[in-house]
Amino acid sequence: MRNYKLTIQYDGSSFHGWQIQSNDRTVQGEIENAFSLVFPGEKICLIGAGRTDAGVHALGQVAHIFLPDKLSTEDIEKAINGNINNDVRIKNIEKIEQDFHARFSAISREYEYHIVKSFNPIKRNYSTALKYKVNIKLLDECTALLLNEHDFSSFCKANSEVDNKNCSVYSAIWNNSDDMLIFNIKANRFLHHMVRYLVGTMLEVARGRYSVKEFKSLLNNKESKSLVVRAPAQGLFLKKIYYN
Amino acid sequence: MRNYKLTIQYDGSSFHGWQIQSNDRTVQGEIENAFSLVFPGEKICLIGAGRTDAGVHALGQVAHIFLPDKLSTEDIEKAINGNINNDVRIKNIEKIEQDFHARFSAISREYEYHIVKSFNPIKRNYSTALKYKVNIKLLDECTALLLNEHDFSSFCKANSEVDNKNCSVYSAIWNNSDDMLIFNIKANRFLHHMVRYLVGTMLEVARGRYSVKEFKSLLNNKESKSLVVRAPAQGLFLKKIYYN
Repeated sequence: MRNYKLTIQYDGSSFHGWQIQSNDRTVQGEIENAFSLVFPGEKICLIGAGRTDAGVHALGQVAHIFLPDKLSTEDIEKAINGNINNDVRIKNIEKIEQDFHARFSAISREYEYHIVKSFNPIKRNYSTALKYKVNIKLLDECTALLLNEHDFSSFCKANSEVDNKNCSVYSAIWNNSDDMLIFNIKANRFLHHMVRYLVGTMLEVARGRYSVKEFKSLLNNKESKSLVVRAPAQGLFLKKIYYN
Repeated sequence: MRNYKLTIQYDGSSFHGWQIQSNDRTVQGEIENAFSLVFPGEKICLIGAGRTDAGVHALGQVAHIFLPDKLSTEDIEKAINGNINNDVRIKNIEKIEQDFHARFSAISREYEYHIVKSFNPIKRNYSTALKYKVNIKLLDECTALLLNEHDFSSFCKANSEVDNKNCSVYSAIWNNSDDMLIFNIKANRFLHHMVRYLVGTMLEVARGRYSVKEFKSLLNNKESKSLVVRAPAQGLFLKKIYYN
C-alpha cells in the first residue's frame, strides 16, 4: 500500500463538518464513499489534518490515505472527483513518504474569517455581516496580543478533551477593505472553535462592549470563560496546512 | 401614491430569474409577495431595470414601485427584508420623482462576468471554471473592438423580439488576477444573453479556436450566428444601473 497526500477544497454549507458521522453528510464520508467505489474491497481510511465544523469551508484541507499502488494519481483524482458532489473537490493528489501523517506532520495551519460590512445575499453562506460599527484600531490592538505562545483555554469549546491548550501564533492580522474585514491567523495548532471565539470576542472589543484589557485578561487564563463570544461558522475558512 | 426606488441584491442560484412566473420562484415574485403582505389590498407592481436569467446574480438591480405614502422608507425596507428569503435583500429604498422609471430612466448598465482559472467548489455557483489555457492578449484585442456603437445582433438570443440591436459600449475590460479572470462591461443597453455570448465567444478566441478577425466579423453583422458560444449563467453579475 502506498501513502497519498490529498489537497481538498469544500463549501461547508451543506456538510455536517469534516468528521464522518453515521447519519449526516460529512466531507470525510463523501470522499471515503468515492474511494470505496474506485477501490472496491479495500479498507478506506482518510485522515484529515484537522476537523472543521458544520458550515466551515476549506480552501486547502489536507488528508492522507493508503491505497494499492495500481492507478496513476491523475486517474485517482479524476475518478474521485467524478464520484463526489461539486461542493467538494480534490485539487491535488500526490504520492508521499509512507510516514507522512496529514495531522501529525503538519507544522502550522492558516485560517481566515470573512466579515462583510453590510449583508450581501451572495456571500450569506461565506461571511458574517457586521450589525454595528467597529473600531479597526482596537482589532489591531487585540491581534498584537495574540502573537507568540499563549494558553488559549478561554477561547476553546468548553468540553474539549485536549489537556494542553498552548498555541503558538505566528501571525494574526485584520485586513480592512471597502466592503469586508478579513481576519487571517497562522499558528502551530488551533483548539476547537478557537478562531471563532477569537473573532467574536475581538468584535465585542471593537464595538466597545469589552476593553482591550479585558480581552488581554482572557489570554493565559484557565479560569474565566465569561466574556468570550463565538462568531458564526459560515465566515470561517481553513486556508492552508503547512508541512516541512 | 408615491414612487419609490429600490436597490436590490440577490443570489440568482435558486431563482428562475427576475421576471415573475406563475409556478416558479422568481426575484420579482418574491419581492412583490412581501409588498402584498406589508401593503394588504394595494395593487403591487414592481418594475425592474432589466430582467436577469435563472442563475444570474445582482449586486445592484434597481426597481421602482408606487406605494401609499404611509410608512417611512426605513420601515418599508425592514418590513420587506423581513418577509423575503435571505438570498435576496433590499439594500436601499428611497422616495424618487414620480416620473422615475427603473428601466426607461436608466442611462447605462454595468455587468461583470466571473471566471475562475481552476474549479473552486466555494465559487461554483458564482463563476465559470476555465477548462483550457487562454491567451489574455487576445481577450484584450477583442474587448478593444467592442467599444462604441455596434449592432450586436450576432450576440443576442435568437428569438429576441427587439428590433434595434444597436448598443453603445462605454467600457469593456478583462481583469486578470492570480486565480480569476473578470470581464467588466458598461453600455447604454444590453440585448438578451449579450454578455454571456460575448464572454463565451471571446474565450473561444482566447483559446485559439476562432481568430480575432472572425470575432470582429460578428460585430455589425445581422446574418451569421454560427460562431457564437454562450457562457453559463452563474458567472454573470448585474453590477450597477446608472441614472442621471
